[in-house]
Amino acid sequence: MNFTRPGGRLPDQLRPVRITRGFTIHAEGSVLIEFGNTRVLCTASVEDKVPPHKRGSGEGWVTAEYGMLPRSTHTRSDREAARGKQSGRTQEIQRLIGRSMRAVFDLKLLGERTIQLDCDVLQADGGTRTAAITGAYVAAHDAVARLLAGGQLAASPITGPVAAVSVGIVQGVPVLDLEYVEDVACDTDMNVVMTGAGHYVEVQGTAEGAAFTRAEMDHLLRLAEQGCAQLVVMQREALARAA
Amino acid sequence: MNFTRPGGRLPDQLRPVRITRGFTIHAEGSVLIEFGNTRVLCTASVEDKVPPHKRGSGEGWVTAEYGMLPRSTHTRSDREAARGKQSGRTQEIQRLIGRSMRAVFDLKLLGERTIQLDCDVLQADGGTRTAAITGAYVAAHDAVARLLAGGQLAASPITGPVAAVSVGIVQGVPVLDLEYVEDVACDTDMNVVMTGAGHYVEVQGTAEGAAFTRAEMDHLLRLAEQGCAQLVVMQREALARAA
Amino acid sequence: MNFTRPGGRLPDQLRPVRITRGFTIHAEGSVLIEFGNTRVLCTASVEDKVPPHKRGSGEGWVTAEYGMLPRSTHTRSDREAARGKQSGRTQEIQRLIGRSMRAVFDLKLLGERTIQLDCDVLQADGGTRTAAITGAYVAAHDAVARLLAGGQLAASPITGPVAAVSVGIVQGVPVLDLEYVEDVACDTDMNVVMTGAGHYVEVQGTAEGAAFTRAEMDHLLRLAEQGCAQLVVMQREALARAA
Amino acid sequence: MNFTRPGGRLPDQLRPVRITRGFTIHAEGSVLIEFGNTRVLCTASVEDKVPPHKRGSGEGWVTAEYGMLPRSTHTRSDREAARGKQSGRTQEIQRLIGRSMRAVFDLKLLGERTIQLDCDVLQADGGTRTAAITGAYVAAHDAVARLLAGGQLAASPITGPVAAVSVGIVQGVPVLDLEYVEDVACDTDMNVVMTGAGHYVEVQGTAEGAAFTRAEMDHLLRLAEQGCAQLVVMQREALARAA
Amino acid sequence: MNFTRPGGRLPDQLRPVRITRGFTIHAEGSVLIEFGNTRVLCTASVEDKVPPHKRGSGEGWVTAEYGMLPRSTHTRSDREAARGKQSGRTQEIQRLIGRSMRAVFDLKLLGERTIQLDCDVLQADGGTRTAAITGAYVAAHDAVARLLAGGQLAASPITGPVAAVSVGIVQGVPVLDLEYVEDVACDTDMNVVMTGAGHYVEVQGTAEGAAFTRAEMDHLLRLAEQGCAQLVVMQREALARAA
Amino acid sequence: MNFTRPGGRLPDQLRPVRITRGFTIHAEGSVLIEFGNTRVLCTASVEDKVPPHKRGSGEGWVTAEYGMLPRSTHTRSDREAARGKQSGRTQEIQRLIGRSMRAVFDLKLLGERTIQLDCDVLQADGGTRTAAITGAYVAAHDAVARLLAGGQLAASPITGPVAAVSVGIVQGVPVLDLEYVEDVACDTDMNVVMTGAGHYVEVQGTAEGAAFTRAEMDHLLRLAEQGCAQLVVMQREALARAA
Repeated sequence: MNFTRPGGRLPDQLRPVRITRGFTIHAEGSVLIEFGNTRVLCTASVEDKVPPHKRGSGEGWVTAEYGMLPRSTHTRSDREAARGKQSGRTQEIQRLIGRSMRAVFDLKLLGERTIQLDCDVLQADGGTRTAAITGAYVAAHDAVARLLAGGQLAASPITGPVAAVSVGIVQGVPVLDLEYVEDVACDTDMNVVMTGAGHYVEVQGTAEGAAFTRAEMDHLLRLAEQGCAQLVVMQREALARAA
Repeated sequence: MNFTRPGGRLPDQLRPVRITRGFTIHAEGSVLIEFGNTRVLCTASVEDKVPPHKRGSGEGWVTAEYGMLPRSTHTRSDREAARGKQSGRTQEIQRLIGRSMRAVFDLKLLGERTIQLDCDVLQADGGTRTAAITGAYVAAHDAVARLLAGGQLAASPITGPVAAVSVGIVQGVPVLDLEYVEDVACDTDMNVVMTGAGHYVEVQGTAEGAAFTRAEMDHLLRLAEQGCAQLVVMQREALARAA
Repeated sequence: MNFTRPGGRLPDQLRPVRITRGFTIHAEGSVLIEFGNTRVLCTASVEDKVPPHKRGSGEGWVTAEYGMLPRSTHTRSDREAARGKQSGRTQEIQRLIGRSMRAVFDLKLLGERTIQLDCDVLQADGGTRTAAITGAYVAAHDAVARLLAGGQLAASPITGPVAAVSVGIVQGVPVLDLEYVEDVACDTDMNVVMTGAGHYVEVQGTAEGAAFTRAEMDHLLRLAEQGCAQLVVMQREALARAA
Repeated sequence: MNFTRPGGRLPDQLRPVRITRGFTIHAEGSVLIEFGNTRVLCTASVEDKVPPHKRGSGEGWVTAEYGMLPRSTHTRSDREAARGKQSGRTQEIQRLIGRSMRAVFDLKLLGERTIQLDCDVLQADGGTRTAAITGAYVAAHDAVARLLAGGQLAASPITGPVAAVSVGIVQGVPVLDLEYVEDVACDTDMNVVMTGAGHYVEVQGTAEGAAFTRAEMDHLLRLAEQGCAQLVVMQREALARAA
Repeated sequence: MNFTRPGGRLPDQLRPVRITRGFTIHAEGSVLIEFGNTRVLCTASVEDKVPPHKRGSGEGWVTAEYGMLPRSTHTRSDREAARGKQSGRTQEIQRLIGRSMRAVFDLKLLGERTIQLDCDVLQADGGTRTAAITGAYVAAHDAVARLLAGGQLAASPITGPVAAVSVGIVQGVPVLDLEYVEDVACDTDMNVVMTGAGHYVEVQGTAEGAAFTRAEMDHLLRLAEQGCAQLVVMQREALARAA
Repeated sequence: MNFTRPGGRLPDQLRPVRITRGFTIHAEGSVLIEFGNTRVLCTASVEDKVPPHKRGSGEGWVTAEYGMLPRSTHTRSDREAARGKQSGRTQEIQRLIGRSMRAVFDLKLLGERTIQLDCDVLQADGGTRTAAITGAYVAAHDAVARLLAGGQLAASPITGPVAAVSVGIVQGVPVLDLEYVEDVACDTDMNVVMTGAGHYVEVQGTAEGAAFTRAEMDHLLRLAEQGCAQLVVMQREALARAA
């Protein structure tokens, strides 16, 4: 192997992760999550209403929206509000975040209310969707804690943690948590969302260049499993600190 | 296991697959593909232009659009043209089809032209996206054959076949090629796109209910591998017949 | 007259017409209608609700939507769902189909429900709107038959058949049921919708080239009357067959 | 016949028609046309460019847009600019006006420029589309006169006048030029566009209630022919006056 | 000062103002207001409903929409309904008109109904927004008078008149009521909305060229105060005439 | 006066202002500006192209876009990208920011390039538009400094600083720099944009409740003048620090 990761990172090494709770003041949960230079603001808003398909069901809903500030990227991207529609990529990502969150929510226990997660990328350097999922979990946890503290909920509807990480094959080498320059160069890119119990919630692997083999996939899944486990620890530590 | 598949299908059994080439007369490739009651019309159109990011590059482009007729489904869905936008699901699927096709295309050999695949679901019964990919490959192959026959291409830009199938866990049983009633009931749903060489192009697994284990994923991947291999044989047979 | 129609058709001769009921499985009525190479899938969906202007009126509603698959045409047309709006032509056609269907429906007898007709062109070779109307009638009839059979309706709200055909003047010759090459070349183009009793529901004549005289219009109306009468017979025969 | 028209009009009598040229100052042609209480402002704008399908053809283009001021009607209608799209009715009407104008234009003689007609209804009382066509012709004529006077055109591209009128059957009586209360009550409604030579450019008849017979259609066409002939005389008189 | 205004107007002189009530027949208030060549049709429509934020409040609402006919301007502007959205300028202006009207309305006295003002520019020559406000007041007054006459209101919800005028600095000279050629050339442009009591409702000043000094602003405010006072007199005179 | 400002602020006292340069890494200028709890991220992006109306002119362009993160506010607002259009308020604000920046730019000296300012509100507590203008100036200055340092510009196109502040009358007391609770309660609200020389670029005053007098306006203008002067000093200090 003659490929060196930026900053000399090891193939199975996460970037420095920082989770800042209470980053803004209005939201019921507000978390700035950083995977290296990737910075995503995740807020959780509690609303006392549910979408039409849940009305009268006694169940709640958890959903997500995702956006990138126009100059969060190397070159400026068009503002989606100005273009008048969200790109396919944006919609794909926000659907992924929503499904990932619902995987650890008992919607019956939540009651007829919605937790709306907003994941806005302030600065992008690869892995924004996995950082968003990992941070959204913490924001959602804070929102739930507030509902519990306020007596609006008697028991937590959260069944356990969920975290996400990207893995990929760059110049033949399977690596964990790709940053932008690696993402651009990689042959295979996979996003993996896992529970605290080490089970899979989502696996999305794409061959950008050559198709990948079963052996490569196994290698990537091992890296992801290890990365998610580390992230779950960091989420726990962040939640243990005073907000 | 006390779960019986509709029609008594075995867990590792595909639905009857039918591939009809030349289904409509105008397109350079036109294939009706049926996975049981799922019927998707896949047309391939050759256009002598490329999108902006490929202009002047000497390379071509392969892309896809996907749609469902409003009453292809059990209850009528809104017409996306009337609503004025494509849903996130639609965009996700057409992006998936496009990437899957490009995985087996040498865009340099294609030259500065576009192959536009249109996958329109006439009747839906689960697995429309995987049927679309499997059929789109045959339509694209026919379009390329016409370019070769007409002397517009000297060598085929297609590097090999690509096919797709869904797998999932229904009532604890991993099964191949889910139809609608299984899809609605499943805990885990995975779409797998593979090359003729048995390598992965796309893996998209989602836990609809409980998160899934590594053992379950391995089981699902084996089923998918076997299903895709069978589909590639059917594609070859279809292409061997006179159109 | 030195103009010969494609395939040696006589000026007053329809193309071969084929009406296939039960073409897809989910809709209450599903008809593939073919006028030569023009193929339109017409489905009728019954919905237990009415648009706002009919709510509480005790009356039902019958309406239609129309679309062309992108490669139903000689060269690919943009997908309207992707462009984000329906063209003026599409809206004009679907309004025409809706009015034509309502002309033979007693909305009071229908009760507060909607019959939604979807006419999707799989393959276009001229006359798609007239084929759509002729086919939609059969689909609507099947949907009504199901409501009668299920006891939801006591009496049929259909007052009689409705069919449509195009006529036009091509190189000075008035002809019936124009196919695409004739449509492109014609000076005058007229779409006529008639009831089984031989009365007019819609007449839409347009001079594409020179304005047309009253004598020419009389000739065209005679051709259309005869064509519609034949189509009504074919509708009856199709409805007499087991679906 | 026991039906009396508002104001005691005879069945074959037009409402008072007034054509005011030069109604606004900026447009190359600006005409306020009144059919009784229906008032439409028709402006003709000359632009030195053509739409893509005419570029480099040496030919020009004539097109139209139509709108109603929100309170031109009895009860306020939504502003289409605020709703973000033009209704199907609006598009249908502006396409009709455009075709009608092109029917009397030699686009080669016009040269590569566009005449854009804007027909805006200030006050509506039935027949707005036919008033718009009749007035747009005068506005277009003024714009052409200016091009001729300025030496930009050597010969007029206008081949003759075009005018339009509505006819319909109200309580069994065929009448000319329906006003709003008649339009609402009518069984059959037909808009007829004719040249100065008495030939048909467009015929659009719709049975709102019962389908209409051939004899009724003949009656309506006679009324329309006579109405259009009168309107062409009024157009000529208006154009003979100093603007 | 070597700058001469078009038509020899004095710096503090309004253009000839004409206010025509009852310009169209359907609206509860309908006023054509002219500031020189600027002509705006202002209609007031009374609707027995309020927007969501006022429902059940016992209070009414007053709001405005603004539009320009495509050829009201020197060169044709795109039709906003065709473009599918209102420009930022249009929205800014209609928000300004709405706020200005609400400044003289007691929404409680109005009761749960809406007065919708539509200001459509038939001909533009500078100052369309200020003409619109000045005319909309008169139209609103007529609509209220009708409600009072019909007994739907017991007391007028209008607290007094409101009028608006533009002022600006052209070639160093502060002038009142800019017409188009002045507007294009001016360094500073200010729109001022005032009550009959001479108090400010809105002040919107913009330096188009050099920033302006406090002394200049004071001069402009004096001109505006005087202009608005004259307009209020003209509104009163117009309302005193039989409609 | 019995009204006390939150936190005991004096009527003429700004909230604590913090200007953080280099807040994100990709943009040519990136500034987080805080007015108390209001936090706006202002980035300046340099693009080597200009909008159509400046092409070939030799001049550059400076423009701005504005957005609020959905949960920057007390209760969550809809995401404009999801709704598919920017509100009138958003457009009004971004037009204001753009004009304010252009007031201190010599577009000829800038050359044919665009400085695009993006002002995104991370946390809102009143005065977001004035904070945005004040911060955007610093971001634009940093972007220009980079162009000067890189030799792309020989001389700065910036003619001097520009800053903005809100003033208003709350319970009869004129105050500087309103925070949210004051903004909601105020009778009159005015945003003032001024140059470093103390001249006016924009004045936008609105009577939310009672119309305001000339004396009140004079008081507000004095407060704004003083506030802007302080902000210009803070901008200078921020720019003097190492980024």
